[in-house]
Formats: sequence, structure tokens, C-alpha cells
Amino acid sequence: MNETLVTVVGNVATTPVFRELPSGPVARFRLAVTARYYDAVQNVWADGHTNFFTVWARRALGSNVQGSLTIGEPVIVQGKLKVRDEERGGQHWTSADIDAMTIGHDLSRGTAAFRRVLKANAALTDPAAAREPVLEPEPEPEPVG
Amino acid sequence: MNETLVTVVGNVATTPVFRELPSGPVARFRLAVTARYYDAVQNVWADGHTNFFTVWARRALGSNVQGSLTIGEPVIVQGKLKVRDEERGGQHWTSADIDAMTIGHDLSRGTAAFRRVLKANAALTDPAAAREPVLEPEPEPEPVG
Amino acid sequence: MNETLVTVVGNVATTPVFRELPSGPVARFRLAVTARYYDAVQNVWADGHTNFFTVWARRALGSNVQGSLTIGEPVIVQGKLKVRDEERGGQHWTSADIDAMTIGHDLSRGTAAFRRVLKANAALTDPAAAREPVLEPEPEPEPVG
Amino acid sequence: MNETLVTVVGNVATTPVFRELPSGPVARFRLAVTARYYDAVQNVWADGHTNFFTVWARRALGSNVQGSLTIGEPVIVQGKLKVRDEERGGQHWTSADIDAMTIGHDLSRGTAAFRRVLKANAALTDPAAAREPVLEPEPEPEPVG
Repeated sequence: MNETLVTVVGNVATTPVFRELPSGPVARFRLAVTARYYDAVQNVWADGHTNFFTVWARRALGSNVQGSLTIGEPVIVQGKLKVRDEERGGQHWTSADIDAMTIGHDLSRGTAAFRRVLKANAALTDPAAAREPVLEPEPEPEPVG
Repeated sequence: MNETLVTVVGNVATTPVFRELPSGPVARFRLAVTARYYDAVQNVWADGHTNFFTVWARRALGSNVQGSLTIGEPVIVQGKLKVRDEERGGQHWTSADIDAMTIGHDLSRGTAAFRRVLKANAALTDPAAAREPVLEPEPEPEPVG
Repeated sequence: MNETLVTVVGNVATTPVFRELPSGPVARFRLAVTARYYDAVQNVWADGHTNFFTVWARRALGSNVQGSLTIGEPVIVQGKLKVRDEERGGQHWTSADIDAMTIGHDLSRGTAAFRRVLKANAALTDPAAAREPVLEPEPEPEPVG
Repeated sequence: MNETLVTVVGNVATTPVFRELPSGPVARFRLAVTARYYDAVQNVWADGHTNFFTVWARRALGSNVQGSLTIGEPVIVQGKLKVRDEERGGQHWTSADIDAMTIGHDLSRGTAAFRRVLKANAALTDPAAAREPVLEPEPEPEPVG
């Protein structure tokens, strides 16, 4: 309740990093989301502000992201936004993370061949999935080109 | 402004129907969206209410849906909700349509291989895309098994 | 999970009807949501499609709606969309309901004086609030002028 | 298109600051959004992560926020999320701003008396409202107690 749910459409900005943790598989990548708006004066579509997010995919979603997404691909991501403030080495850091519930390739930009993974979906059977997820500590900020 | 944007995660419930219209390619299909909730008393996840929508995909998205989606596949859809009331043959019909902005396979359920389509994306260059889309008349209600 | 969450901005189209049920207070009203779009050709904002929803407010929200909302007022509503199909007297009915989580007056259209209600918020303490809400049967469809 | 729309429910964390700018009235305040989740093990609702946002309200919404909101009040806010990175005095700052489209008091927490403001709504008539809004430079980061 009162979670900040977002749906964003953008491009995978870094190669997804995959790890097997005690809590299960986790993949993460940076996502670039550029607003497009219609400029009525010049009669053209133009780029607006770009938001960058760190997207976290867990369990089955993490494994499938690892086998499906590569840098530059257009995606739609739905998840819970977490804005975090931290002191690290005397520096103040804020990050905008999305704990993803679903990710898919953006079919307005291309075609996709889907293959269902039949193993049990932990998100549907694990009681822990009903609880607040814990964001893994991120070892170091990732540069985005 | 004041549009009813929705993001829904569900399954393709009918084979997408594709047509080339004067306004461009259009694909449409029925989508079944079943809520899942955690039953704290019985300690299990259970099915809740199922919403059915008619999803419309236009221009490049329509063509790519035609080449990518088959019945039963899990998808995420973002678009504009249109609830419509109609008299047809003395009967009162209400339908819940989604004019899709983006559609993607749900990677929490499987993997996908993406191929970018390089032709110009009409949604980004066509001034008409800034205007209110017109829903095509739907010739007959589709039964959903 | 997989619920169809919507946020809509529109006008209260019928006087809210309030009932005390065994499960607690419930208020309901019809909401009219008219999309506005910028017509780049004529250089004006214009009305698009209007969606009508039946909004249900329960527990503390129901009581406060009863004491706060009147027909014609502009509001923002966040909740779970339920599209329902029914046979009733040989007729087929579809309705689009929103089970509201939050409702507020739209401050882009006017000012509001708020008074906090201090009694326990059932939504925060009632374990039942974690379960799937049951939509009360709607005795008869309401005409909207 | 591709904007990051969010709807958040939280509490006004700083007294709104109001300014008349050449582009029109602007109000801004900090918003605290605390997720609530149901702890199935302990059978209670508990607090999760808190997100802080800087909310910007412009034109008629800005004026009405100034006349309606005070610190501590519960609100629902719908708007466009902007995550910004900046160098300032050799320090790296990230902020999460919401350019608000609508704000309302949260009627699940109390009652509200609404008064419509009849003057022309600039958001509906100003062609500039169709263009990308420009975030005013924020003179200094605000501490949130």
C-alpha cells in the first residue's frame, strides 16, 4: 500500500549484471527513459528530459532478463520506485531504483520470439514475495556512457 | 490530459486479428488480466477477479504484434483505457478497450529474442499521432473461451 | 499482484450514495473522466472520449467521501479497476468499477480545507484489508444524465 | 510520450513555498511517501521504505496549493517524475522531482470542503501547456526533518 508504482518505457543503458544470491537470482541494469513531446510551434516531435533508473529483477524475472536483454534494447518496465539517499565516503548519493515486477521488450520498436519457462514461478508460490523486498547493497555506482 | 492510462499484465486470450486500414496497420486481441493476492489466512496466493480488455495496436506496434504474439502468451500492455457504451441491435453493450502505446512479452514467465525493426517509426514522426486516436468500429463482439 | 491500478481525474457525476453494511461503511458514485488533447491543427485544446466509472469507497474513505463530495466536484481517484460482465433479466451488462484506495479534490480546479479524522484507520489495522475486497452487488444500474 | 507518470500518496513534509514567476505562480514542497505492507508472519501492517520527492505545482494548481496545503497533511499527487543529476560546488546531487498535474487531500484520512476557483484555467487554454515544462532552478536543497 502506498507504494510508488511506475511504468517506464526506455532503453537498456548498461549490460545486465547477473548474480546468484542466497535469496535467489538477481539481474540489474541501468535504464534510460527519454520523454518525447509534440512541439506545436515547430510541428515536430522532440526529445525532453531523460530519467535514469537502476532496474533490479529478481527470481525468475532475473534469470530471464539475463537470457533475454542486451544493451540498447527498448523495453517496458513496471515496478516499485525506490529513491534512496546515502552517505558514502563523505559523499551524498541519491539513486532512483526500480524493483521490477515485469519487464518486456517494446514491440513498437521490433518483434520478439517468446519461449515460456516452465519451472515453478517463485513469485507466485513463495510467501516471501508478499513481503517487502530488500534491495541488495549496490557495490559501486555504475557509469552510464 | 486526463486520459485513463493503464498498465496491465495478463495473457493473450484470442488470436490477434490483423488488418491493413487506410490509417495504417491495426492488430487487436482480447487480454485476460487476473489479479493475484496473498491470502494471509490460508497462507497462499490465490486468483482474484479477471478483467477482460480488447487491446488495439496501431502502426508499427500493430505490425510487430502480428509478427510476435500468439494466443496464451503472457504480456504487459500500457495504453489508454476507453470504456464505451453502445446500442447494437436493441442490445446495450459496454466494452473496455485499451488503445496500446506499448506491448511486451512478460519476462517473468519466459525468455524472448528481440529483433529491432528499422523502418521509420510512424508514432514518432506522424503529426497525427499527437491527436486523439479514433477507435475502429469493431464488427462483432468476440467470444472469449 | 497483477491488479489493474488506475488513477483518473474527472467529475463526480451522481450524488454519492452511502450505506452502512456489516462489512463497514460504503459510499459509491459515478465518475465522468473526459480526456483533453491538444489539437495541433486548430491550435486548441479539445475534449476527447469520456469514460464513466462506478467508484466504490469503503471504511474510513467511505465515511469521509460522504462528508466531503458533492455532485459536480472535480476529483482524483486512485484504485483497482474491475470490469464486470453480468446477465441480468436476460440482458448483458458490463460495468467498469473502481474500488478506490484514495480520493481527493482536484486542486487544479479550486481550493480545499482539510480536517483530519482521528479515529483508527481500518485500512491500516484491519487484516481483512490485505485480502481481496468483495464488490457489493449493485441493486440497479444508475442513469447518468 | 514515454514520460514517467507517477501517482503517489503521502504527507506534505515541508511548508509549501510560493513564488510568482514570469511564467506564472509556482508552489513547491517536499513529499514523504511511505510504503505500507502486510507482514504475513507477524500478522500486522508495517512501514516499508520512504521515498522523498520535491513536488512542483504551477499556474492555477500552484495558487490553489498555496491556499490549501499545510505541512503534515496527507495528499495524493499525480505528475511527471524527473530524476536529475547535477554538479554543484564540486558535489554530485541527484533529486527526484514531480511536476504535478493534480494534487488532492487524501480523503481516507479526513474530510475536505472544496471551493471551485472560477478564473480561467491556464492549463486548459495555454498552448504552452502542451509543451515540455521547464523546471525552475532550485536555489538550495531543502532539509527535511
